[in-house]
Amino acid sequence: MLSKNTVKFIKSLHQKKYRSDSRMFFVEGEKSVLEVLDSDFSVEMILGTASFEKRNSQVLTSFSGDFISVTQNQLEQVGHYQSNDAALAVVKMKENKAFEPGEDQLILALDEVRDPGNLGTIIRVADWYGIRRLVFSQQTAEFYNPKVIQASMGSFTRVEFFYGDLGEVLERWKLPVYGAFLDGENIHRLDKPASGVILMGNEANGISSELAKKVSQKVTIPGFGRAESLNVAIATAIICDNFKRLMGS
Amino acid sequence: MLSKNTVKFIKSLHQKKYRSDSRMFFVEGEKSVLEVLDSDFSVEMILGTASFEKRNSQVLTSFSGDFISVTQNQLEQVGHYQSNDAALAVVKMKENKAFEPGEDQLILALDEVRDPGNLGTIIRVADWYGIRRLVFSQQTAEFYNPKVIQASMGSFTRVEFFYGDLGEVLERWKLPVYGAFLDGENIHRLDKPASGVILMGNEANGISSELAKKVSQKVTIPGFGRAESLNVAIATAIICDNFKRLMGS
Repeated sequence: MLSKNTVKFIKSLHQKKYRSDSRMFFVEGEKSVLEVLDSDFSVEMILGTASFEKRNSQVLTSFSGDFISVTQNQLEQVGHYQSNDAALAVVKMKENKAFEPGEDQLILALDEVRDPGNLGTIIRVADWYGIRRLVFSQQTAEFYNPKVIQASMGSFTRVEFFYGDLGEVLERWKLPVYGAFLDGENIHRLDKPASGVILMGNEANGISSELAKKVSQKVTIPGFGRAESLNVAIATAIICDNFKRLMGS
Repeated sequence: MLSKNTVKFIKSLHQKKYRSDSRMFFVEGEKSVLEVLDSDFSVEMILGTASFEKRNSQVLTSFSGDFISVTQNQLEQVGHYQSNDAALAVVKMKENKAFEPGEDQLILALDEVRDPGNLGTIIRVADWYGIRRLVFSQQTAEFYNPKVIQASMGSFTRVEFFYGDLGEVLERWKLPVYGAFLDGENIHRLDKPASGVILMGNEANGISSELAKKVSQKVTIPGFGRAESLNVAIATAIICDNFKRLMGS
């Protein structure tokens, strides 16, 4: 039975303030709910339809949180998806803990990527290219925003990340920093890069002048037409593709 | 003075049915309005703020349609942008006329790309890579949808396109067709491609089996992580980048 209080609680998680207060967020759709169950996130509660429960009875046996049977209509009432005939999970946020770079070939750093759809798409791109670690400036969109979770298509479960002062972080790491600019080295002519950090800037303003000082190599995607710029998620993907082409797996 | 009838007419253009009936669409924001004025589209009417009019008095001198002075609030009432302090243009659709491939290095073909944001982003990517011609299946999102126009960031003014039966078109053109699949040739290992068509499929289902028969070479973006797929606009950009790298300008 779905109580009014649970409905109210999940609806509150649409807003950043209540996510921050409760340190909870929600995940929608069968694939993403199964992926978050299979990850190191802690799932508190699942709302699922009868058919979702039937299809995944095995997996749900080992789930120790609350399982609440609901209808598709109820799922769509509480969640953010227009259409959801499967499930919604309420999940604990992770602690915001800085990692050290370690053995990573590449780390992705985002300076004020504000649009949640862009952030989610970038997380999916990072996962595609095997980049497991990301660091975000404090002004970057919130990782737990439902639009970020949706656009990441489950990849949010497979990356490690933290929010911090990028200037301090890059200073401390002493790694090569490849920054995306409109006047850098043509990425089609790059030599094999060393391991390091790929730094992407804000949708409208690019990398801040403060952070630009930490960049060891400016890189640029060559244009052949008249568009003035590329979307930041598109640019991230093209730069990752070029780096992985040169570095191999 | 902005009449009630004009407000009603522009508001009707939010819906596909009324765009189709009137063969009109609208364009918002200073940059895009200036770009559409500078293109071969025929602009019927401009709604602009006093400051927009002042900044662009030169350009507006040669504009022969109606110019209506409005407030920012009025612009936001009639348009689709949450924030617009500049202008909105009402523009005539172009005729849907098939082109022949001619001298183009690359043509982009889209098979049921349904999401307007994806279509707009793909148009911007095509413009970035100097791909001036696109062909869309009938089930692809509508070019004149406000979300397509917005996501294309003005690039919609610089491409030529038509909607048609892709099977027939590809059959007639007799060009090499490079289709994006998950089990094709690694694009990092492609030889220099001939001129031809890059074919991208639907967000969920990829290229239809019917069209797959027209593909002369399947190509694939190598993955290094665990994401199962990439967003179609992202994949288009990466494939275009790899082709242009090999073909040069």
